[in-house]
Amino acid sequence: MKVGGQAYRSIWTGEHPRRVHVIDQTRLPFAFATLTLSTRDDIAHAIRAMRVRGAPLIGVSAAYGVALAMQQDSSNRALEESMAVLLATRPTAVNLGWALETVKRQLATLPPPQRADAAWSFAKQLADEDVATNEAIGGQGLGVVRALHEKLQRPVNILTHCNAGWIATVDWGTALAVIYKSHDAGIPVHVWVDETRPRNQGLLTAWELRQHGVPHTYIVDNAGGHLMQHGKVDMVLVGADRVSRTGDVANKIGTYLKALAAHDNGIPFYAALPVSTVDPRLENALDEIEIEERADAEVRAIAGLQTENAREAASVLILHPDTPVSNPGFDVTPSRLVTGIITERGVFAPGQLATSLS
Amino acid sequence: MKVGGQAYRSIWTGEHPRRVHVIDQTRLPFAFATLTLSTRDDIAHAIRAMRVRGAPLIGVSAAYGVALAMQQDSSNRALEESMAVLLATRPTAVNLGWALETVKRQLATLPPPQRADAAWSFAKQLADEDVATNEAIGGQGLGVVRALHEKLQRPVNILTHCNAGWIATVDWGTALAVIYKSHDAGIPVHVWVDETRPRNQGLLTAWELRQHGVPHTYIVDNAGGHLMQHGKVDMVLVGADRVSRTGDVANKIGTYLKALAAHDNGIPFYAALPVSTVDPRLENALDEIEIEERADAEVRAIAGLQTENAREAASVLILHPDTPVSNPGFDVTPSRLVTGIITERGVFAPGQLATSLS
Repeated sequence: MKVGGQAYRSIWTGEHPRRVHVIDQTRLPFAFATLTLSTRDDIAHAIRAMRVRGAPLIGVSAAYGVALAMQQDSSNRALEESMAVLLATRPTAVNLGWALETVKRQLATLPPPQRADAAWSFAKQLADEDVATNEAIGGQGLGVVRALHEKLQRPVNILTHCNAGWIATVDWGTALAVIYKSHDAGIPVHVWVDETRPRNQGLLTAWELRQHGVPHTYIVDNAGGHLMQHGKVDMVLVGADRVSRTGDVANKIGTYLKALAAHDNGIPFYAALPVSTVDPRLENALDEIEIEERADAEVRAIAGLQTENAREAASVLILHPDTPVSNPGFDVTPSRLVTGIITERGVFAPGQLATSLS
Repeated sequence: MKVGGQAYRSIWTGEHPRRVHVIDQTRLPFAFATLTLSTRDDIAHAIRAMRVRGAPLIGVSAAYGVALAMQQDSSNRALEESMAVLLATRPTAVNLGWALETVKRQLATLPPPQRADAAWSFAKQLADEDVATNEAIGGQGLGVVRALHEKLQRPVNILTHCNAGWIATVDWGTALAVIYKSHDAGIPVHVWVDETRPRNQGLLTAWELRQHGVPHTYIVDNAGGHLMQHGKVDMVLVGADRVSRTGDVANKIGTYLKALAAHDNGIPFYAALPVSTVDPRLENALDEIEIEERADAEVRAIAGLQTENAREAASVLILHPDTPVSNPGFDVTPSRLVTGIITERGVFAPGQLATSLS
């Protein structure tokens, strides 16, 4: 997608010599800066410091890390060591483990001199597959937005929560892929951007949409229900962390409240995600997914820019140190509140999901 | 209620010479400071600068302002001038206009030498009446909490939104009066405090509860639905800005989302308010109340303390100046989602409200 009029992915490469370039996501949305990563340890540090974030992007980055390592030393010992170093950067990231296991399996059977090129190609392929998947999600969702626009005969107002945008993937994003595809196809869309406390990922969504020229308005998380009561939202569209075979959607905390309001006001609620997000073992997400309690520091302090110059980073403490905090990271929207699941393979009603994807 | 172990009202007086003391609410919750107001203009400035806030407190403050003015000059001209000066401090505050009209009506018929004492007495009476009303609201709500505790046989978890606490009134508050009465009666309560973006009035609620020793936990506005899904909330309890005769509750933006979640999870939803908040002309609040769009600056910047020393006030900008913002100030919870309205005259089902209060 575009930044300052120029097309970007969240990760790209240079060939002679091989270099990996990423956007420093720790500085977004307050500053746009890119990083050049030349070694495995550069990559490991970027993942650990969350300069790259989002499941697919972390997996791709790690694969490039293995490729850069193999350029220096393509022995079995070096391969094992790189696996360990990169896996330790974000030990709970499922995509990271999967990407590393896959690249290792491919390299293990190759003679060492071929490993650097093979890993480099694999990483590129992984990146391209992510882009293709997300673009396909966008294409499938475009049909939903187009139908709404044809019915309404005016701009379609879409409310989104958190950031399911291109910077959380290699390109396009998931929920925002649908919005970019619709916008690029000339369908007038306007996006209500939920702030998404405590981490304010709405700031990232607003940044993406501003850069790509998609009309949008930023709102606090409390506002969406009221807007829906007054006919100002035509569709709720979010990404997902995990979806059950029955169509329950686990996503960023607060999604459930928006789904309730959408249901109460007869507004369709969609989640957009790659098929790989559907967990076929999961039957009832509300009962079976454990509550992830995140660090209270996320709630206690808020990051932004100094009010004096609107340039330098700053943050403020809002809570007294003795005030207890609870900070659940996500919630589950039961399938009864979900209109459709938008995937790269089609748009499915929650009840059709298991049979359609099997 | 208590601050640092000492009982306070939000406004109190000294007699020789006559002085008005208030808590400087612009510095809460980050600092506790009191102000001594000696003249009408001191009072006018405190109201204008929102050092005192909350409808009942503004009304009482203005009445004291008239009394202080009458000590200097009790002529008709001085009375008229004081009315104009004080009314201009917050021209849209209904309570302010009402209090000033009432004190003027009483003073106009008195010989000037009696006016200062009469106004002083009237202001004290207004303050005492507010305290009595709120304490009675608390007493009525205590029955609801007690019944829940007897049924559950464990601490009662109450979720509240915004600040309907004692500092928004002269003492006790409305929703928080119910919590203070329950806590003081020995019923174990734990309060989930909604942050309440954009103005973060949850910080005031957390401050009040910490000072009074009521167990509580601060959460972002997104978290409540998830907590309700997992049985962690036994009751939702809020204040109200305006209530229709049919029991629709207009309150701080985001209340509706919590009411939806309470309804979806079979959790009772109560609003606590003085009978004067019920507007008998209002039939359908959703259709009849105009949406109040507040300043976008409330969303763009967040106030707190410097992270370096946790003492000095600071704020950060979170939004790009080109990002459009919508900031509706309140929403309407339809009566079908309301379990009961707690007033000083009893607890009523929304459908009984009109007949019970007529």
